[in-house]
Amino acid sequence: MGRLNINNINPHVRAAEYAVRGELAVKSEELRAQLSKGTASLPFDQVISANIGNPQQLDQKPITFFRQVLSLLENPQLLEKEDVLINGLGYKTDVVERAKWLLKNCGSVGAYSASSGVYAIKESIAKFLERRDGFPANPANIYLSAGASSGVNTLLHILAESPKSGVLVPIPQYPLYTATLSVLNATCVPYYLDESKAWGTDLEAIRSSYEKAKSEGVDVRCIVIINPGNPTGASLSEADVRAVIDFASKEKLVIMADEVYQTNVFIGQFHSFKGVLRKLQQENPGKYDDVELASLHSVSKGMVGECGHRGGYFELVGFDAEVEATIYKFVSIMLCAPVIGQCLVELMVNPPQPGEPSFELYDKEYNGIANGLRERANALHKAFEQMEGVECGEPQGAMYLFPTITLPQKAIDAAAAEGRKPDEFYCMRLLEATGVCVVPGSGFGQREGTLHFRTTFLAPGTEWVSRITKFHQEFMDKYR
Amino acid sequence: MGRLNINNINPHVRAAEYAVRGELAVKSEELRAQLSKGTASLPFDQVISANIGNPQQLDQKPITFFRQVLSLLENPQLLEKEDVLINGLGYKTDVVERAKWLLKNCGSVGAYSASSGVYAIKESIAKFLERRDGFPANPANIYLSAGASSGVNTLLHILAESPKSGVLVPIPQYPLYTATLSVLNATCVPYYLDESKAWGTDLEAIRSSYEKAKSEGVDVRCIVIINPGNPTGASLSEADVRAVIDFASKEKLVIMADEVYQTNVFIGQFHSFKGVLRKLQQENPGKYDDVELASLHSVSKGMVGECGHRGGYFELVGFDAEVEATIYKFVSIMLCAPVIGQCLVELMVNPPQPGEPSFELYDKEYNGIANGLRERANALHKAFEQMEGVECGEPQGAMYLFPTITLPQKAIDAAAAEGRKPDEFYCMRLLEATGVCVVPGSGFGQREGTLHFRTTFLAPGTEWVSRITKFHQEFMDKYR
Repeated sequence: MGRLNINNINPHVRAAEYAVRGELAVKSEELRAQLSKGTASLPFDQVISANIGNPQQLDQKPITFFRQVLSLLENPQLLEKEDVLINGLGYKTDVVERAKWLLKNCGSVGAYSASSGVYAIKESIAKFLERRDGFPANPANIYLSAGASSGVNTLLHILAESPKSGVLVPIPQYPLYTATLSVLNATCVPYYLDESKAWGTDLEAIRSSYEKAKSEGVDVRCIVIINPGNPTGASLSEADVRAVIDFASKEKLVIMADEVYQTNVFIGQFHSFKGVLRKLQQENPGKYDDVELASLHSVSKGMVGECGHRGGYFELVGFDAEVEATIYKFVSIMLCAPVIGQCLVELMVNPPQPGEPSFELYDKEYNGIANGLRERANALHKAFEQMEGVECGEPQGAMYLFPTITLPQKAIDAAAAEGRKPDEFYCMRLLEATGVCVVPGSGFGQREGTLHFRTTFLAPGTEWVSRITKFHQEFMDKYR
Repeated sequence: MGRLNINNINPHVRAAEYAVRGELAVKSEELRAQLSKGTASLPFDQVISANIGNPQQLDQKPITFFRQVLSLLENPQLLEKEDVLINGLGYKTDVVERAKWLLKNCGSVGAYSASSGVYAIKESIAKFLERRDGFPANPANIYLSAGASSGVNTLLHILAESPKSGVLVPIPQYPLYTATLSVLNATCVPYYLDESKAWGTDLEAIRSSYEKAKSEGVDVRCIVIINPGNPTGASLSEADVRAVIDFASKEKLVIMADEVYQTNVFIGQFHSFKGVLRKLQQENPGKYDDVELASLHSVSKGMVGECGHRGGYFELVGFDAEVEATIYKFVSIMLCAPVIGQCLVELMVNPPQPGEPSFELYDKEYNGIANGLRERANALHKAFEQMEGVECGEPQGAMYLFPTITLPQKAIDAAAAEGRKPDEFYCMRLLEATGVCVVPGSGFGQREGTLHFRTTFLAPGTEWVSRITKFHQEFMDKYR
């Protein structure tokens, strides 16, 4: 027997739950391995990983401009053969220019950058934020991170003063938040989103969760908003954003706005917390000056879909200077975000513009991805509408649908006999029958007595959707 | 006033110290900015960042084979124009083949991989370990990480059961260890390295630190060894490695072997903990079967020097299966290590072999870097030997020299008047006078009453060395 066992390691790490890559995901990888080795006869010939927003695993092609620039950053020797690049490989002049500019500013993508990122890239992000919101942004308050997850990790580390430190987290939520709060031994204060209002924020629900936690002695200090929502896809109205800021201002809560799906919006438009906060500050001089906002973005989602590059950033507004210095020190311990990922952030926030040589192809690719996502979301939604006991709101944004399922009592009993939650049971049977891997609603949290699952709509084609429909009918027939 | 201030954030993050990127590093960046803007008249025209092992910032060229492959991974469309690649750009066929093989196995570098890394890359690492050590390695026990730092962070998270959980850390040490233990609110149990024996491990010092901590109620559960050493450059003999394993086995301590400098060895040869452990197990059947070893490696150091790519891995030996499952879950929360960095790990552990098209250039570049490092280490060492009050052992390994400095009392008094430690004072004056940024020994820990500083020997040329020599003479004259 060695020193470590499951009972004497860090209990907070042990307690953390992270269903997106949990039992079902592991099982799906086993099935994939069996298929590729031909060692099992399975009722499907392909595993569809609809459990995780990983576009390029599901054949989404990267955007050409981005990858051409990155290829030059990885091998700057190519810049010595500009004629071959342009005439032999079809690289446009703006690709070459951007690569030179990025290399001038980061030196080499193989060198550590400053802990908070390459300064010129932070300036580029600030300009993007100014264009997006119509208000200035300060590069000194921008921190590059290894995807948004690493930014969330940093911010929650700072916030977690003691086990009583509480963070309001939407339910259902992306489990990064609960898992990290568990690791930090801080308190998650859940608030329910309103399924009847397309999973919008419900200020009364927020307030009552807040008051209840406060009365139990929790020092609630932050509210997390995921907009557009994960797993729900909900896209908040400007009024909803204003209401949250107003509440946070009154109760002195740091706002953590997870805005990684800001370009995945099908209905209405995206309202950034930063933009709305600045408007509120303009309309009400002095009133909202103390609001502390951290907003996060990433190259993993949107039409970029570059998850594997681990690029992202967060912007801080209204933070105390000594707190920012502590954040800087904390990110220094891990040295810096991957520099090639930082460069990809720069390309995302500063893409080719009309009239520039790479614009036409960029625009075509970008819109092709956007339209493909919308079409697949609608096709999947239509299929759900026709399934017995399944209810699902219209697709609004992000990369997910999160339907409610109503299962027969016999299915719930069968689940209990296996020691599983009913939605876990359903998702496991779905995986075994169809090869489609989705995540049970219990992995994100859901109101007692309700059942859901989350699926991405990233997989190409519609054949896999009909696999789900067929399975569902057989499942309902079996347990009715 | 907002919610957060320096007194109510996480006290463990506040308490963490990380001098490698501390006050001196920040000051050096300010000076660099002043130089590039021409806003100040300074007594030097270039800042030399000798505070951090960041080879490519100091003009070390990346290895061509690595970067050619990475350029194809970033832009796989180039593979459709193989004739242009080969005839127009001079890419060899093994570059093209390796890129195809990596793409086949990771799909796209823009897709998340499995949480512990791309399986084929783990297999490649296992083969490298087998060749290096002469004993088998299991890819299932290998975890890709974002540099070795992220691996250390993972392992310390698992180990930190309570504030009483103790980890033996060498002093002087790379401050990642003390900083992370501080963030985790676990106990650092320092043990001194023996400067009189070229900074080797001193088993008596380890034992006495261990016994003292145990008697104070600390649950000492792990020993960290940095070999070759950082900041000391020490390279351990096989006998030293055996002695540490034997001690760890007797006291049931997990061994964390930070071996990121394993190819930076000037004197003798590198002895991996894994290889020596397997030998001990072979020689003493049954006796060392319970030893738990985690060994870490990285693309940031060695002749690779690709810090900005954040690539690394750790291998676990003898860990409990449930503990490994918890490690897998923990790394899942951050999704995966950067995939392009994972591919670079593969290239590092599986470089071109004699007879292969890219071998000749690879070999020339690799040896050129190795010889350059050795020459600069010796030149710097020679300069230190001639400086008054400076003592420095022969360069053995890693990227650093860590000389002892003896300062006049008047300098120590002047430091105290400024509220600084004497070595901080010395390093600040050095930076202001010469633009050379080094790290005071107090940032790594040193025996009471001794003073040191750490400098890399990465900067090209020797002009900067003569700047140090000149400054030192003037400093000593002023305070003598």
